[in-house]
Amino acid sequence: METTVRRRKHWGWGYEDQQPSHEEVRNAGAGIRAQLGFEPLDAEQPVPLSEVELPAARLEPPPALGELCSVDPHDRASHAYGRSYRDIVRAFRGRFDHPPDVVAYPREEDDVRRLLEWCDQARAAAIPYGGGTSVVGGVEAAVGDGYAGAVSIDLSRLDRVLDIDEVSRAARIQAGASGPVLEDQLRERGLTLRHYPQSFEFSTLGGWIATRAGGHFATLYTHIDDLVESVRALTPSRGVWESRRLPGSGAGVSPDRLLIGSEGILGVITEAWVRVQARPTFKASAPVHFESFAKGAEAVRAISQAGLYPSNCRLLDPTEAAITGSASGGKALLVLGFESADHPVDAWMERALECCRDHSGEGSADGGRRTADGVSTWRQAFLQAPYLRDTMIAAGVLSETFETAMTWDRMDAFVSGVLERATTALRETYGAGSLSVRFTHVYPDGAAPYFTLLAPAKRGSELEQWDEVKAAASEAVIAAGGTITHHHAIGRDHRPWYDQQRPEPFAEAIRAAKKALDPHGILNPGVLVDPA
Amino acid sequence: METTVRRRKHWGWGYEDQQPSHEEVRNAGAGIRAQLGFEPLDAEQPVPLSEVELPAARLEPPPALGELCSVDPHDRASHAYGRSYRDIVRAFRGRFDHPPDVVAYPREEDDVRRLLEWCDQARAAAIPYGGGTSVVGGVEAAVGDGYAGAVSIDLSRLDRVLDIDEVSRAARIQAGASGPVLEDQLRERGLTLRHYPQSFEFSTLGGWIATRAGGHFATLYTHIDDLVESVRALTPSRGVWESRRLPGSGAGVSPDRLLIGSEGILGVITEAWVRVQARPTFKASAPVHFESFAKGAEAVRAISQAGLYPSNCRLLDPTEAAITGSASGGKALLVLGFESADHPVDAWMERALECCRDHSGEGSADGGRRTADGVSTWRQAFLQAPYLRDTMIAAGVLSETFETAMTWDRMDAFVSGVLERATTALRETYGAGSLSVRFTHVYPDGAAPYFTLLAPAKRGSELEQWDEVKAAASEAVIAAGGTITHHHAIGRDHRPWYDQQRPEPFAEAIRAAKKALDPHGILNPGVLVDPA
Repeated sequence: METTVRRRKHWGWGYEDQQPSHEEVRNAGAGIRAQLGFEPLDAEQPVPLSEVELPAARLEPPPALGELCSVDPHDRASHAYGRSYRDIVRAFRGRFDHPPDVVAYPREEDDVRRLLEWCDQARAAAIPYGGGTSVVGGVEAAVGDGYAGAVSIDLSRLDRVLDIDEVSRAARIQAGASGPVLEDQLRERGLTLRHYPQSFEFSTLGGWIATRAGGHFATLYTHIDDLVESVRALTPSRGVWESRRLPGSGAGVSPDRLLIGSEGILGVITEAWVRVQARPTFKASAPVHFESFAKGAEAVRAISQAGLYPSNCRLLDPTEAAITGSASGGKALLVLGFESADHPVDAWMERALECCRDHSGEGSADGGRRTADGVSTWRQAFLQAPYLRDTMIAAGVLSETFETAMTWDRMDAFVSGVLERATTALRETYGAGSLSVRFTHVYPDGAAPYFTLLAPAKRGSELEQWDEVKAAASEAVIAAGGTITHHHAIGRDHRPWYDQQRPEPFAEAIRAAKKALDPHGILNPGVLVDPA
Repeated sequence: METTVRRRKHWGWGYEDQQPSHEEVRNAGAGIRAQLGFEPLDAEQPVPLSEVELPAARLEPPPALGELCSVDPHDRASHAYGRSYRDIVRAFRGRFDHPPDVVAYPREEDDVRRLLEWCDQARAAAIPYGGGTSVVGGVEAAVGDGYAGAVSIDLSRLDRVLDIDEVSRAARIQAGASGPVLEDQLRERGLTLRHYPQSFEFSTLGGWIATRAGGHFATLYTHIDDLVESVRALTPSRGVWESRRLPGSGAGVSPDRLLIGSEGILGVITEAWVRVQARPTFKASAPVHFESFAKGAEAVRAISQAGLYPSNCRLLDPTEAAITGSASGGKALLVLGFESADHPVDAWMERALECCRDHSGEGSADGGRRTADGVSTWRQAFLQAPYLRDTMIAAGVLSETFETAMTWDRMDAFVSGVLERATTALRETYGAGSLSVRFTHVYPDGAAPYFTLLAPAKRGSELEQWDEVKAAASEAVIAAGGTITHHHAIGRDHRPWYDQQRPEPFAEAIRAAKKALDPHGILNPGVLVDPA
């Protein structure tokens, strides 16, 4: 049923034709292990799909929906997981415990309505699927025995920019448009959304909205939330949920904010008006080095509280700066950038650099060049990371991240406490490995620390090992008052800690809201809250 | 029971001891009418409370709550209404159709819990009351016959700043703290919230959060929403709703955003952590004149889309500029201001003034002076307006506003269409009068037009006359795609149009959420949605 010639890898990042040869993987894997100081271990090959026996599909689509639906093994396998470490490890090994029974590709909004109608009648779980890049089990059909089966509703064919309002700088875009697909359409009019999560290449507008994705901007417009002007979604039992296009409103609770972050449990987002902008023409960036992460954090706090709003303000600890090749010598690196489509940004950058110097930061603006420094090195590494991770997994290397947010007053103790707890767990579980931290987004009242872990995994024990470390890290984050996620969503994987975090009356409210719109609890059961 | 010596006027704005003598009101009223070109009409006096017979209280608080509760006529009358035109007219005439049966003054959070428990058991409506400055019927005990009575829960004694975190620039503040009361406490530490709605003198933090109040900043942090770090509220049946202090989060739907704008129907907000800031030391302001409102709007759009984020960017049409004495000669006036606690704002102001000149705006920055121009004149008028309105009402002058928001692409037609429809209704109903417009808040994708109406009212027909015009204006706003309010909330008065505006599935979700937290529907019944 999937008609595009180019197929996504059923187990990892990117397209099948992008997968390097096993020889290349072996060499790269050996190099990575050596660079990380891990003992040599030959890279494995993924279990080919032809050797995987998927459980038989439990659902048969009604004839009228037949041409939208696929039970092809590649479709089912490639929609079985997101793209977390535990997802890729399982798929790599040919383990598919509960793939969706059917993958549906609606071509227009009314197809989505008909699919929901069928799922509701059939008591099948309906899992909205954007780019499948969830790292928290957000699209996995682990729905339990209460359902007749599960349908993955892949919105990738709803990928058009439907309207562009150049005056208001806004665009109406279908939910299934991926980052490059929507940016290509906006570029024709000189506009851009500039929302660049690490998953940009595959993740979709609808997925970003459903998961409150974090994007390009390190300050101010940190989440997709801030770029949403209105949302349109379909509910199983109450029809269309569509808000008005408004630049701002105080009319009761924001309807958009109730859909944003709902992870597909209240409705299937089909399109949204988003705020776009002119492509920036003035740019300045500066790599600034600090003696320590804590020193850099002081400068970042000063910049955040100064009202300067840099587009980039990412602080890498010495380990992370060294790993990405952006800095050496044990220094922390601040990747600082300003951009504007309207005016030179020198005054802004100058003041930000003053803030850095006040905290012993060393660096200067590049005057517009964006190639010859740690900034571009880091950016390239950022976007290549998901590809590289597939190779790491083949080479037996744990490569995973977790992230959170914390106010400034408790930041130092929080970061060092979480690092300590997670490092202990990493050492105990893996016997080796490294843990690094950066700030991805910063605010006047705090920042979002993002932790990266690399360790030599034990073949066959990857899931148990990682689950151990993830649990330790999550417990440390939650116990110290952080959030279980700043921009990776809850899904199924974060539930144990999210359930401790969210106010219980709020969870009751969400459960009741879901029950009203989705009485049979078909929409993405298991994420966020359990259906009432 | 009310122990403060200074009492609020039971019918209008401010304290009893601030009310000018009737002689002063007569003279001022005559002057206003003459200035507005209305025929002379002698000012009336308010019906003294001693001549008002309130309906007998239907509730008797249990002994344990007795000392928190009052059935004193002044307490009941002064909590019967908000402070809209229709509120003040009714109270002025001694008309109190459904005052609360009891006014309760909790002194600590647990008192609120006990009061809710009593109301829930007694099936009495519980109306959270902050400063009583609602202009949309948000605190009026028009709850219907389904309740044993109504209790106004006045939070004014919960007015302390409980914690200040200078590092993160955040403060934990009780919900009943009014603008001046919380700013006084923050000032001791050199900090400020800088949320200045027109009701600043009396409205409270809890009220701002419950109603998504609009504040000082014309851009960026336009609503209290943006300043809230976490919220604590009590629900009738599910206990405490408290979110974590987080600078940002992507953990599911934002719990705070579900309380913000909930207008007291989901819980009673008792405190919040809010983002504060250092007091600004660098300021620049500039009055800029434009040939027309539409010309000024073009400049404002350019400034909004340039990413300059002025603290003030209010555009007054020629009528409004003339009425407030800020400009003459038929010009529109842009009140432009930048402020910072960190850096000089010259570069920002310079670029904004360039945007103005690009659209034929004439003006220049004042270099820090804030006294000798239209800016300060306008600001003074802004804060005095509620006092002045009491005099206008005594003098038989309609003085009211309505406000909305719209994207830029449809702005010109929207503003002129609404002006035309409302002016027609004003002329038909009042035979005379003026209608003016300003932008109070501006965004990259649109702005919030705010309309002010002045007309000679017919004694005894004030409500019918205003209801006619308000309905015409609201219909025009809703039909043209606007929001029924940008920052005045929904309350009971906006319901007919809000019900057309909000997505129906969203309303179902909110009703269900309310039912889960407030099964007997005691909390502020009638605002936002009808209890399920």
